[in-house]
Amino acid sequence: MKKKLLVLNGPNLNLLGQRETNIYGEDSLSSIIDEARAHAVKLGFELDDFQSNNEGEIIDRLHAARGVYCGIVLNAGAYTHYSIAIRDALAAVKLPCVEVHMTNVHMREEFRHKSVIAPVCVGVIAGFGKISYRLAIDALAAYCI
Amino acid sequence: MKKKLLVLNGPNLNLLGQRETNIYGEDSLSSIIDEARAHAVKLGFELDDFQSNNEGEIIDRLHAARGVYCGIVLNAGAYTHYSIAIRDALAAVKLPCVEVHMTNVHMREEFRHKSVIAPVCVGVIAGFGKISYRLAIDALAAYCI
Amino acid sequence: MKKKLLVLNGPNLNLLGQRETNIYGEDSLSSIIDEARAHAVKLGFELDDFQSNNEGEIIDRLHAARGVYCGIVLNAGAYTHYSIAIRDALAAVKLPCVEVHMTNVHMREEFRHKSVIAPVCVGVIAGFGKISYRLAIDALAAYCI
Amino acid sequence: MKKKLLVLNGPNLNLLGQRETNIYGEDSLSSIIDEARAHAVKLGFELDDFQSNNEGEIIDRLHAARGVYCGIVLNAGAYTHYSIAIRDALAAVKLPCVEVHMTNVHMREEFRHKSVIAPVCVGVIAGFGKISYRLAIDALAAYCI
Amino acid sequence: MKKKLLVLNGPNLNLLGQRETNIYGEDSLSSIIDEARAHAVKLGFELDDFQSNNEGEIIDRLHAARGVYCGIVLNAGAYTHYSIAIRDALAAVKLPCVEVHMTNVHMREEFRHKSVIAPVCVGVIAGFGKISYRLAIDALAAYCI
Amino acid sequence: MKKKLLVLNGPNLNLLGQRETNIYGEDSLSSIIDEARAHAVKLGFELDDFQSNNEGEIIDRLHAARGVYCGIVLNAGAYTHYSIAIRDALAAVKLPCVEVHMTNVHMREEFRHKSVIAPVCVGVIAGFGKISYRLAIDALAAYCI
Amino acid sequence: MKKKLLVLNGPNLNLLGQRETNIYGEDSLSSIIDEARAHAVKLGFELDDFQSNNEGEIIDRLHAARGVYCGIVLNAGAYTHYSIAIRDALAAVKLPCVEVHMTNVHMREEFRHKSVIAPVCVGVIAGFGKISYRLAIDALAAYCI
Amino acid sequence: MKKKLLVLNGPNLNLLGQRETNIYGEDSLSSIIDEARAHAVKLGFELDDFQSNNEGEIIDRLHAARGVYCGIVLNAGAYTHYSIAIRDALAAVKLPCVEVHMTNVHMREEFRHKSVIAPVCVGVIAGFGKISYRLAIDALAAYCI
Amino acid sequence: MKKKLLVLNGPNLNLLGQRETNIYGEDSLSSIIDEARAHAVKLGFELDDFQSNNEGEIIDRLHAARGVYCGIVLNAGAYTHYSIAIRDALAAVKLPCVEVHMTNVHMREEFRHKSVIAPVCVGVIAGFGKISYRLAIDALAAYCI
Amino acid sequence: MKKKLLVLNGPNLNLLGQRETNIYGEDSLSSIIDEARAHAVKLGFELDDFQSNNEGEIIDRLHAARGVYCGIVLNAGAYTHYSIAIRDALAAVKLPCVEVHMTNVHMREEFRHKSVIAPVCVGVIAGFGKISYRLAIDALAAYCI
Amino acid sequence: MKKKLLVLNGPNLNLLGQRETNIYGEDSLSSIIDEARAHAVKLGFELDDFQSNNEGEIIDRLHAARGVYCGIVLNAGAYTHYSIAIRDALAAVKLPCVEVHMTNVHMREEFRHKSVIAPVCVGVIAGFGKISYRLAIDALAAYCI
Amino acid sequence: MKKKLLVLNGPNLNLLGQRETNIYGEDSLSSIIDEARAHAVKLGFELDDFQSNNEGEIIDRLHAARGVYCGIVLNAGAYTHYSIAIRDALAAVKLPCVEVHMTNVHMREEFRHKSVIAPVCVGVIAGFGKISYRLAIDALAAYCI
Repeated sequence: MKKKLLVLNGPNLNLLGQRETNIYGEDSLSSIIDEARAHAVKLGFELDDFQSNNEGEIIDRLHAARGVYCGIVLNAGAYTHYSIAIRDALAAVKLPCVEVHMTNVHMREEFRHKSVIAPVCVGVIAGFGKISYRLAIDALAAYCI
Repeated sequence: MKKKLLVLNGPNLNLLGQRETNIYGEDSLSSIIDEARAHAVKLGFELDDFQSNNEGEIIDRLHAARGVYCGIVLNAGAYTHYSIAIRDALAAVKLPCVEVHMTNVHMREEFRHKSVIAPVCVGVIAGFGKISYRLAIDALAAYCI
Repeated sequence: MKKKLLVLNGPNLNLLGQRETNIYGEDSLSSIIDEARAHAVKLGFELDDFQSNNEGEIIDRLHAARGVYCGIVLNAGAYTHYSIAIRDALAAVKLPCVEVHMTNVHMREEFRHKSVIAPVCVGVIAGFGKISYRLAIDALAAYCI
Repeated sequence: MKKKLLVLNGPNLNLLGQRETNIYGEDSLSSIIDEARAHAVKLGFELDDFQSNNEGEIIDRLHAARGVYCGIVLNAGAYTHYSIAIRDALAAVKLPCVEVHMTNVHMREEFRHKSVIAPVCVGVIAGFGKISYRLAIDALAAYCI
Repeated sequence: MKKKLLVLNGPNLNLLGQRETNIYGEDSLSSIIDEARAHAVKLGFELDDFQSNNEGEIIDRLHAARGVYCGIVLNAGAYTHYSIAIRDALAAVKLPCVEVHMTNVHMREEFRHKSVIAPVCVGVIAGFGKISYRLAIDALAAYCI
Repeated sequence: MKKKLLVLNGPNLNLLGQRETNIYGEDSLSSIIDEARAHAVKLGFELDDFQSNNEGEIIDRLHAARGVYCGIVLNAGAYTHYSIAIRDALAAVKLPCVEVHMTNVHMREEFRHKSVIAPVCVGVIAGFGKISYRLAIDALAAYCI
Repeated sequence: MKKKLLVLNGPNLNLLGQRETNIYGEDSLSSIIDEARAHAVKLGFELDDFQSNNEGEIIDRLHAARGVYCGIVLNAGAYTHYSIAIRDALAAVKLPCVEVHMTNVHMREEFRHKSVIAPVCVGVIAGFGKISYRLAIDALAAYCI
Repeated sequence: MKKKLLVLNGPNLNLLGQRETNIYGEDSLSSIIDEARAHAVKLGFELDDFQSNNEGEIIDRLHAARGVYCGIVLNAGAYTHYSIAIRDALAAVKLPCVEVHMTNVHMREEFRHKSVIAPVCVGVIAGFGKISYRLAIDALAAYCI
Repeated sequence: MKKKLLVLNGPNLNLLGQRETNIYGEDSLSSIIDEARAHAVKLGFELDDFQSNNEGEIIDRLHAARGVYCGIVLNAGAYTHYSIAIRDALAAVKLPCVEVHMTNVHMREEFRHKSVIAPVCVGVIAGFGKISYRLAIDALAAYCI
Repeated sequence: MKKKLLVLNGPNLNLLGQRETNIYGEDSLSSIIDEARAHAVKLGFELDDFQSNNEGEIIDRLHAARGVYCGIVLNAGAYTHYSIAIRDALAAVKLPCVEVHMTNVHMREEFRHKSVIAPVCVGVIAGFGKISYRLAIDALAAYCI
Repeated sequence: MKKKLLVLNGPNLNLLGQRETNIYGEDSLSSIIDEARAHAVKLGFELDDFQSNNEGEIIDRLHAARGVYCGIVLNAGAYTHYSIAIRDALAAVKLPCVEVHMTNVHMREEFRHKSVIAPVCVGVIAGFGKISYRLAIDALAAYCI
Repeated sequence: MKKKLLVLNGPNLNLLGQRETNIYGEDSLSSIIDEARAHAVKLGFELDDFQSNNEGEIIDRLHAARGVYCGIVLNAGAYTHYSIAIRDALAAVKLPCVEVHMTNVHMREEFRHKSVIAPVCVGVIAGFGKISYRLAIDALAAYCI
């Protein structure tokens, strides 16, 4: 397997840095991805990224990831809480995946405490803003050798 | 901000007037939109409309609405009850939005009593058939000045 | 049936404009009723109003409404959430009724999300301050001809 | 103790015979009470009756019943399902009480299956239209000697 | 249809008068049935009775009741709370049935407050000891003419 | 603001000393109020009292308390557990209020453990019989200066 | 193992074709079994059948099925929803079993949506009237070779 | 009272030793009973046993146990979890009873954690295979003197 | 109506035969469809098929099915458990639909036991691997004549 | 019994006055205890105090309180909501205890509304800051004579 | 492994024989332990015991038990119902453990019906007073050879 | 503030590497801490550590951490799921804290999905074995400057 990672971002994450900056910070998604890529490269990985607001497209991209990536960083946004379809896609492709959130979801509304996706991931990292992505890459490194 | 409104219709509302007319009435979506537009014009608004059965496309359209519309009339159909992703999109774009339903959802199945979207809207109007749209436009007028 | 409407306000709404103006606005109940009446008259309706903090008096007034009014605008205040007795009164008198709230109850405490009255109303309008009453009158117009 | 019974009717029961006759039958409350009184007299009882839509007035009447009546027939209408205050009044006055309903509440909405009052009554009779009252008087006879 | 009633008693009711007499009274089932029969005869009915601790036998007896009895008095004992099979049998044979209990089940454990059978009965009578049976016969009289 | 307190008692508390003295003690409401008043006077307060079995009258009295009293001692009786209307009245008048109960409600039925009113009070005192009132006056003293 | 199937019918299914024909159709159980047997024979199977309203007899019959049948078609009627004892019997005998229902149980009351038996069956077929049995035999064919 | 015990086994326990021996062990019910009887005899007790898959027969046998046995060892199998009828039978006959299970029911499915029968037993012994029976006899010895 | 069926497969079913073959078997979706088509043709039907991971596209396809197909075989995959939007689409197009699953969903996680779609289908077939599709076509045959 | 009281404080209360002073006020625990002791002395009591963050130590101290103190003031902090062990200790030592909280726990998170300890206390006082302790001593005075 | 057992008692069990003797009997913990030890010795075991009111000390003692004892008798008292930490300790040390209770916890408050520890024990014995310990030792004997 | 971190480990984590190595890996707690310290030192931090099975000691240590450490890595083990006392301690000391777990708690029992501590932490890292600690240190680095 090539040393290549996929960072997959779900609904509304394209708005990072433009809206609700008090919650999510000033950085745009592309600058966050750039930092993540720089970090990945330092560790010897290539890094692709994909963002979609569309549940079906995220599933399609997960299917296409087999044989291409050795691990996935997934911020499924609101889909985290109800998309059993994304969960099933992850379970099917069997790639090591780290669920990330920029915010500490446990501080927010009750319905954000439950993840239907986490049980099929290697682990979860939540609450560290853009650093969540960097930590996820570090965590995946152990699975991509 | 321009005086321009967006009427956004979710899944299955393209079938209005063709199916279940005993529940939803004889009017097609386009005739309902035409009436709504005529009403909006009378109040000095332009009105665009968009319908999609696709959660992701509705989110995309909400993102694109920033800076273009001063308010949104949203009939999210069945997504009303579970699309936290649409809720997050609305919360992010911060445009005043009125949730509308043609039927009185409180008379129907238990699972239709809960709206995950209403908490991020200005208000809710439900139960008046196509008139719900006209009332929503009236309600938005106060927010678009 | 005469073209006559009844606006019925429940507990604590007599305090409008005097207390919690940050939530409910500066207008007193009487000025809100005056605006509503002016709007009703424009549409060719007479409008009576009644306010009580007393569940039993509200029920009595609903009973007395038969044969006198062609429609009811009901802001049942806190009784919205538990007065099955008011619900039964409405179901019995069979007049078209619109449930209104000045605030968006879905943004507030969990226990305010449930209405025991809405299932026997034509529809619900919530969140538009005093304009909620005007919209309700517009909505009732279609039922009073 | 005198052989005197009180038939107490709660909210909306004053409309009997005028509305929803398909559910509740054609008889007015006064004709139902007349039949109940005739039946009571045959068993050697006097019978008073009281109807109110007002929770507080029902409680007042229960308090006043001590020392006057040897038993109570109570159709608390919708208050059956939530008036802990009426329950406490009954528990305090300690008169034998039979809870009656004209309809079979177990066939109706879920929220009508629960009675907060029944646990402090002698028993419950539900589903036999106006005959429910006559059966309740028969049942009370054993407690008024 | 002949004027003939069936009194059907479920599990443990054969022990009446022998055990827990502080709760259920001193009368044996046969003496209770004798009183009930005497009362039925006075009203012009024949009365058969059957007791079984066995859910299946109760169902068999309900099936056999069609065309023979004009009404059923059913004390299903503990099966009241979980036997959907007895409920379905009653619904299928479509005979008017009165659910009876000697005790006021609403005063007892939470799990005794729910009846799965009541929704397919004409009505319910609970709490009057052996008199519950007599009242049930009176109630059925209106259905057997 | 004058140093004047209002002691407000809800449903069935007029029966104190007459009924269920094993639970509530031998003292009548008036003697309890007399003791409370004597205690208040010692602390430099005037004390008015009001009792009603009627939810609406309690709300009316709370509204009338603004500008007259510097604090309220409220024993809402059974309304404690479901009257959102009384809660809203308290929230609106914004007077410091102490919820009192003579009994320790946490020892009693499950449904008495929940107070819908406590969240808008300064605090709660429960379980000390008539002394609960005296303690509440002491507690309010800090808020009425 | 011989190519022999057992069709097992639970409570109230003996009434098929006699009662509630609007729900269950005009066919009697014996004619349904005859059709099922004809179909089984065409596929090279013998078919026995058994009906009982008695939970214990159904369990006895399941025990006796070991070594005799290669598969079971089970319509457990109302026992589907609560008979853990039948579930355990099935789990113990370890024969492939198909749960069938003539009606679509998911369209009916909430309590009919849960099957305690399905988790120990091969699969479930529901909603196709008498054809459900034929489909179940087809499905079992793959397990009986 | 004679020193005589009844060991009562419910549904599917007749299959012991024949099926699911990995869970329940290799011993047949009769060999387990033989060991239990030998143990009882050593303690000076006679021991009868009864097994049935039929809820009603178990109830009948409990009724018949009065005056004959000084204690009961009951493995109600799956009925443990829902047979309120067996619970009521035990409560009525008032014999000391020990609930036994061969497996540790708390390790198994959620629905096996609840016993409706345990609250009317002296105690519960679960998890020790056939030794559970011997321990139950030891425990009963203290109640049979 | 033409004798034409649509087999509609939801999210992740495109991976059949490639992943989790221990659960779903070795057959690819296209070979399963081929077998299903061969079977349909034998029964005199044409068969089209469509797979998408996208909720919106499934709804679009259901809308387009009106007037073209006489029945639908729907394996909605994970959407079965939460897509009220697909449910509404099915209810609107009013074509007979059979819900199929290859696995016995009742054996799997709790959240897979609930189907929001089944109540608007003719029936459900689950647990028979690829044979589920063939059985569904057989079941639909009765509705397409 | 000597006139001696124990004030027992649970986890984190040692931080009073140092942290979260906006919630808990500026006073340190020792100054609060000093004020409480002064008050107790005025009423003729000695007062000891103990603080621990350790559940077991609190239980040990409660055990040791028998025969030494005539009453306990207990602020169990977070243990209030889950320590059944402290509840059992209180129930065992049978000393009159008043549960106190400085804050109005009913205004805070849902999980702070439930007290597992209150049902074994004389009563509860919550919401009055350090004054809660003084009121508790007053309340205990009636029990220590 | 040596034939040595540890009897571990949790919170409040040190008070045995001193308090609530109507519930727990007259025997002190040390006399109960003495009897248990005598019994163990008869079976060829040494027996150590430890009691603590402190959750952490119980965990420490469980850790220290590895390699020293061949089995554990654990009466975790109130910790039974919430100490996942003790559960994890038991799961980690992997010694056979029998959960014992002197009382029949199923007869007591609802919250005592749940054990978080039982799922990691061999079995449970509850309800036989001090005999519960003796039975537990008998049960453990089979695991210590 | 000094650049000094505290790694705090809760119940049973002292057994790491000795027990359940298939779940938790072969490393002992001290070797894990050594690696963590080495990593911290590389980032310019000192690192202290503390392990206790005792809830109260963990709280004491958190209190003592104020003014000494700039951040905390907390693996509260089983206390994560119920210790509101530890939560309150963290909230009081207001130090940035990262909740860590070696296993992916979302893959394990339902009761391990809920953290009462996470809402007062900066964030959560779970599922990466001993690497979870290193990632937590990286995450804290941003808060300790």
